[in-house]
Amino acid sequence: AGGTESCDWAAMLARMNIITKEDAKKISDGLAQIEQEIINGDFDFKDEYEDIHMNVEARLKEIIGEAAGRLHTGRSRNDQTVTDLRLWLRGHIDILHDEMLDLLDAIVTKASEYAKSPMPGFTHLQVAQPVTFGHHLMAYAHMIRRDFDRLQDCRRRVNECPLGAGALAGTSFQIDRDFTAEKLGFDAVMANSMDAVSARDFVLEFLNVAAIHAVHLSRLAEEMVIWCSSPFQFISLSDAFTTGSSIMPQKRNPDAAELIRAKPGRIMGSFITIATMLKGLPMTYGKDMQEDKEALFDAVEAVFLIVPAMAGMIRDMQANEGNMRAALDKGFATATDLADWLVRDLNISFREAHHITGKIVGLAEKKNVMLENLSLSEMQSINPRIHQGVFSVLSVEASLTSKTSYGGTAPENVVKSVEEFKNLLQMLKGRNKG
Amino acid sequence: AGGTESCDWAAMLARMNIITKEDAKKISDGLAQIEQEIINGDFDFKDEYEDIHMNVEARLKEIIGEAAGRLHTGRSRNDQTVTDLRLWLRGHIDILHDEMLDLLDAIVTKASEYAKSPMPGFTHLQVAQPVTFGHHLMAYAHMIRRDFDRLQDCRRRVNECPLGAGALAGTSFQIDRDFTAEKLGFDAVMANSMDAVSARDFVLEFLNVAAIHAVHLSRLAEEMVIWCSSPFQFISLSDAFTTGSSIMPQKRNPDAAELIRAKPGRIMGSFITIATMLKGLPMTYGKDMQEDKEALFDAVEAVFLIVPAMAGMIRDMQANEGNMRAALDKGFATATDLADWLVRDLNISFREAHHITGKIVGLAEKKNVMLENLSLSEMQSINPRIHQGVFSVLSVEASLTSKTSYGGTAPENVVKSVEEFKNLLQMLKGRNKG
Amino acid sequence: AGGTESCDWAAMLARMNIITKEDAKKISDGLAQIEQEIINGDFDFKDEYEDIHMNVEARLKEIIGEAAGRLHTGRSRNDQTVTDLRLWLRGHIDILHDEMLDLLDAIVTKASEYAKSPMPGFTHLQVAQPVTFGHHLMAYAHMIRRDFDRLQDCRRRVNECPLGAGALAGTSFQIDRDFTAEKLGFDAVMANSMDAVSARDFVLEFLNVAAIHAVHLSRLAEEMVIWCSSPFQFISLSDAFTTGSSIMPQKRNPDAAELIRAKPGRIMGSFITIATMLKGLPMTYGKDMQEDKEALFDAVEAVFLIVPAMAGMIRDMQANEGNMRAALDKGFATATDLADWLVRDLNISFREAHHITGKIVGLAEKKNVMLENLSLSEMQSINPRIHQGVFSVLSVEASLTSKTSYGGTAPENVVKSVEEFKNLLQMLKGRNKG
Amino acid sequence: AGGTESCDWAAMLARMNIITKEDAKKISDGLAQIEQEIINGDFDFKDEYEDIHMNVEARLKEIIGEAAGRLHTGRSRNDQTVTDLRLWLRGHIDILHDEMLDLLDAIVTKASEYAKSPMPGFTHLQVAQPVTFGHHLMAYAHMIRRDFDRLQDCRRRVNECPLGAGALAGTSFQIDRDFTAEKLGFDAVMANSMDAVSARDFVLEFLNVAAIHAVHLSRLAEEMVIWCSSPFQFISLSDAFTTGSSIMPQKRNPDAAELIRAKPGRIMGSFITIATMLKGLPMTYGKDMQEDKEALFDAVEAVFLIVPAMAGMIRDMQANEGNMRAALDKGFATATDLADWLVRDLNISFREAHHITGKIVGLAEKKNVMLENLSLSEMQSINPRIHQGVFSVLSVEASLTSKTSYGGTAPENVVKSVEEFKNLLQMLKGRNKG
Repeated sequence: AGGTESCDWAAMLARMNIITKEDAKKISDGLAQIEQEIINGDFDFKDEYEDIHMNVEARLKEIIGEAAGRLHTGRSRNDQTVTDLRLWLRGHIDILHDEMLDLLDAIVTKASEYAKSPMPGFTHLQVAQPVTFGHHLMAYAHMIRRDFDRLQDCRRRVNECPLGAGALAGTSFQIDRDFTAEKLGFDAVMANSMDAVSARDFVLEFLNVAAIHAVHLSRLAEEMVIWCSSPFQFISLSDAFTTGSSIMPQKRNPDAAELIRAKPGRIMGSFITIATMLKGLPMTYGKDMQEDKEALFDAVEAVFLIVPAMAGMIRDMQANEGNMRAALDKGFATATDLADWLVRDLNISFREAHHITGKIVGLAEKKNVMLENLSLSEMQSINPRIHQGVFSVLSVEASLTSKTSYGGTAPENVVKSVEEFKNLLQMLKGRNKG
Repeated sequence: AGGTESCDWAAMLARMNIITKEDAKKISDGLAQIEQEIINGDFDFKDEYEDIHMNVEARLKEIIGEAAGRLHTGRSRNDQTVTDLRLWLRGHIDILHDEMLDLLDAIVTKASEYAKSPMPGFTHLQVAQPVTFGHHLMAYAHMIRRDFDRLQDCRRRVNECPLGAGALAGTSFQIDRDFTAEKLGFDAVMANSMDAVSARDFVLEFLNVAAIHAVHLSRLAEEMVIWCSSPFQFISLSDAFTTGSSIMPQKRNPDAAELIRAKPGRIMGSFITIATMLKGLPMTYGKDMQEDKEALFDAVEAVFLIVPAMAGMIRDMQANEGNMRAALDKGFATATDLADWLVRDLNISFREAHHITGKIVGLAEKKNVMLENLSLSEMQSINPRIHQGVFSVLSVEASLTSKTSYGGTAPENVVKSVEEFKNLLQMLKGRNKG
Repeated sequence: AGGTESCDWAAMLARMNIITKEDAKKISDGLAQIEQEIINGDFDFKDEYEDIHMNVEARLKEIIGEAAGRLHTGRSRNDQTVTDLRLWLRGHIDILHDEMLDLLDAIVTKASEYAKSPMPGFTHLQVAQPVTFGHHLMAYAHMIRRDFDRLQDCRRRVNECPLGAGALAGTSFQIDRDFTAEKLGFDAVMANSMDAVSARDFVLEFLNVAAIHAVHLSRLAEEMVIWCSSPFQFISLSDAFTTGSSIMPQKRNPDAAELIRAKPGRIMGSFITIATMLKGLPMTYGKDMQEDKEALFDAVEAVFLIVPAMAGMIRDMQANEGNMRAALDKGFATATDLADWLVRDLNISFREAHHITGKIVGLAEKKNVMLENLSLSEMQSINPRIHQGVFSVLSVEASLTSKTSYGGTAPENVVKSVEEFKNLLQMLKGRNKG
Repeated sequence: AGGTESCDWAAMLARMNIITKEDAKKISDGLAQIEQEIINGDFDFKDEYEDIHMNVEARLKEIIGEAAGRLHTGRSRNDQTVTDLRLWLRGHIDILHDEMLDLLDAIVTKASEYAKSPMPGFTHLQVAQPVTFGHHLMAYAHMIRRDFDRLQDCRRRVNECPLGAGALAGTSFQIDRDFTAEKLGFDAVMANSMDAVSARDFVLEFLNVAAIHAVHLSRLAEEMVIWCSSPFQFISLSDAFTTGSSIMPQKRNPDAAELIRAKPGRIMGSFITIATMLKGLPMTYGKDMQEDKEALFDAVEAVFLIVPAMAGMIRDMQANEGNMRAALDKGFATATDLADWLVRDLNISFREAHHITGKIVGLAEKKNVMLENLSLSEMQSINPRIHQGVFSVLSVEASLTSKTSYGGTAPENVVKSVEEFKNLLQMLKGRNKG
């Protein structure tokens, strides 16, 4: 990016008659040669020059002589460095944009497959009500959709151009900041030279977006670790996402899920690193700001690891529907459906309905049967008004089918929701990133 | 908000014939009576009921009897609690929206006052180049403008309605979620019941927005503390924002600025609190989530303290222009202007120009005079090509005036930039918050 | 503490003839009266006085007149405030000291009860090797023992006395700092007046100790949540530590465990709050430091909640040994014992032993039996050298019994380890806190 | 460390007759050869083996064949990895131990040089009372002394040996854990195999110690940045610790101080990374724990950068005593001495003394003179009881000399305090690290 930025800067200087067209050509050719040298591994980085910019500058001088110095007319390392950081981050946001869409695609496809498959809906890791596995997965699709929105909002603020702000005060050369900003694909030119050089909120905002996303993925990862454990065995993962043991071939350590679960801390840590650095930092530039890079790079690396890993793992995952169903049956998960039926069909008050339901569940537990396997007379022994109609709500299927309120887990809802989300994804994939 | 929410919920239930119009009326009247009791201080909160919801429910039952129970048809504490939290946060965002606009107004007004007043532009807290105090202040206006944008982006995602998601699975009652969402002023209805109940990214996003804003204010606050110190004395603050000492009446402790400087940590701490709590948390609801409130409330309290304090302090602040000017004169702040002149007017290379400038500054330092007080022959003793024209760039005024590149500190630029920002503020103030 | 501190200060001033004995008596009587007023709820706090110190001072003046002012001879609010904070924290550390010993007592007692009860030892939440439940619990005893050590180390550094450092420079009055420090129970007098007033590392160190402890408890809490879930059901908790559901009486939400799990974030957040505040803060005192209290109080409140809650929950917990055993049997948890036997008794290389074991486990899995239920000939079909001796290592009991290396899970080891820990606790309970 | 650890392990296995002496010899020789290969750069790391352990193991097998496998008897990667991490950290703590003593040496030596040099003691960055520069520096010596104590306390808990805990349950081989622990220089053997493998509190504790230390250094660094700014110019730093500008040779950017100021965030970030990872992590081992290394390495790197940088900068720093004195004179820094004199010598009440002092300071400010340059009659115009004796407390020297309370800034105190600290350092340097 540094190369492109410098070429565009030289072109602008020539266009504004600040340097000659000949010098601009020399600079452009020299930078092209250096780029090639770097690609070929022929470029000799020297420690005596502090960083990549200094190295390129020194080499450019070797190649084209005096004219190299003119490249810096009207800009400084302060605006150049932060321009490069913004370009670098924008590039990585755009890759992440695609990775997140791919992850959404993986989730939605898997949700489609299991749109009607019953599983226990948990609260407090206790079986609460039946949901479908597809419905559970779609909850994450919606979370990640908001992460994606945040990433796009963030991109707008990353993609503002500080170039030409000089060291801090602007410049007396008649530069054209719009020209370079447009050439470099920026959406806007930053309107205050001190802000341009000194602001790092674009880094903090990205770290926030990444941290929230990592927290979401850690929740799903935790569930996958639990679902893989032998008492649950709700899902199976292949060797690609687990590590086996030569002596215990049935043991599959969900390493990928554990790595994803571990990563929010890293990104939260990077946020703390940079926010603490910036706290109470006077304008315009301090060496402190050099600290912005390493922590950002760490966080980008982390998020680039977990998003495709999760996408791959989701695609790989197979549900063990029998085990899910068994856990449901064991959990009297339709108890609330029974209570709702008492309220709605027998016009019993909530409190009383809860009381009756509790007694019936207690009976079923004692007899070690599912609610639907109690006889009508057994239920009537607790409340004589209960009639045959009650059986229409006691099964898992009945419970699921009845949850037709908007956003509810009724299989038809889930199927429709998946379809709508697929359409949304198609639209998002076709759209420009900016 | 809980009252309104419940009234709207009851109205919807009646509208959908899930409860009778009579019951809805009773509920509505009962809730109105309870609201009045709370306002009058007559409401008797009982510890035996866990929270405000439980207390209201118990009292409603006392007043209207059986019908009270019907209010809960189709909703649960899980969706109700998070709906209330979203309404609460939205209300506070809207107040903060106005506070931030007021802060921007204070900054822009003060920047207007000092649009042309020279002060040293610092890097590394060393005098670097002249800027105007107005320009320096406008840098913060732009930072806060982005904070404001982030707050608006955040509001959209806060303002989605979970109500009607039930405990986690939706409901079998034929509720109308659109109706209640619209009545409560939400922009959208959340499309997945598990996501609705379980997501807390709206809290994390708000904390991020608030943390970045607090970091920005801490930077300005730190500068104000330094500017108030006796070796600087760049600004004065009145008693309203400082604490005096009865024995040292000249000593003015910038307490307000120090409090503002201290607060980013609190908000960053709240972010860590909730992100750590959510990390690896399985769906749908866990008691862990109760932890979301206290940390959010703390952060909101902090940000509600610092934004008006900063606005007041900015309005109160008087610049000591003489001290700012003296620091500038002491700092050879136009050295880069001299170097740029050598490049531009004498066509000397950058490297050589820097070398010559260093020698001239060294001479001025030795003679203890400002650059513009060196004689032409003194400068020519270092490079004979220097001519009378050089004096056109050596003064602070000349330096400022020359920085006409977009975003530069030229006083005319700053005046224009302030005017544009004032227009923007007018537009923002007139706009709907949503 | 403020009262005691002031009384001791007045006594010292009189002793050093800085104030008269009569004034010291008046001050002492006046403070005693105020203390009684506060206890009786008769004390009238006025907002016009900033804080408790100011209020007490004003009231003291009302009661004893002029002499009240002499109390401040040689001290200032700066050293007084931090002295009070240290006393406050020391008091809470001493309560926590007892709470942690009580928690250790609960764990060790429960470990004693289940010292020989087999449960699966997990890695990656996969069944790995048999351990005893007592052994598992004792791992936490050792973690908390180190937390306890850290708390004691921290106490030493908290318990240094800043009183008498004055505003920042010391005082010209001939005070006796040793006298007041000793009276107030401090271990040492701080040797530099600026450090005395400005240092807050004692707060950060306590927060660290508390955060690590909370992380440890969160790990155990997470395990308890998982152990309570219906597919596991390794443990049962009574109503005192769970919340039931009227309609699902079999559902027991492990609320206490979830609250404990949620709290590390709060304490980590407090650490971030104060560390960020202190970062880059010049000496000696800034209003920023006022921020030290709220975050510390929050963290202390959190840790005071979770330690007794965990102690209570541990005492309450009942293991469902049958379910633990079933999970073990399902997990081929003695596979490594088989491999070790092949190495040791048949002198087969590790790699080969792993290979053979994998095949035998595969066979057992296919036949859906435990390893010990395979016949000798079935095992010999995989490696003919296997002989009857192998059965001595295949059972869970054999595996457990064999782990006699120091720190290993052999029941006899666990019993002994529990006894040693009980003796340690007795010693710690008898010891002085300082 | 891995090499040593493995050699000692093999020696122990042979000693306990678990492997033959011949095999132990082969292993020892093979590991020695591998170590030499690594040193010579001849070792061929292969990506197919996950980490350094796996690579060494594979190479050992190439060299010595079958016997290589016996090295793992009774240990596992779980205990081996954490043993190595503890050894690595202990080694770095020991280096840091020396670095911190060197930093203390630099501070104390500089404090000795300036033990009697007056400078303003600041609160709120406002001039408050005179102190000596040596006294100010000694405040940091005491902070860092506590950091050093914390590091030693931490080392004790780092230096406990997990080796021999096996995968999690111990082992059935008759190993001697004491032997290897002693050989490797550990202070103790960890007493519970699950704790041994699973605990990472030693990492968190080190990060805490490092974070607090970094916060302390950031405070001093911030002061140095301010002291270097042109309105202050309290100190000068040479080119070794500042970056100059070719065009502004008088400008010296205190880059080293700014880098130090920036680093607390990085270490706090590492703490958050690992604490978040560990939060709610079930025993015994999860892939999550792999995350412990990178964040720890980052933090160690940061602290290894800032400690010697600060030591060097302190040694390099020269005070500009004239500027410090000028700031003092401008600040009426002896006003509290005047008030104390009124209380002590004229027996005037505190409140009245403050009132009179305020008026006298106001007069001096109006006349633009120092307090000691007011005439007696001018002071008597405010209170007629003031007599000639007042001049004995008005000068900076008098103020300093009078602060003889323990820990006060009287030059004789500071000289004595420095000497005592030097003796302490001698003792600490002579002491064993453990």
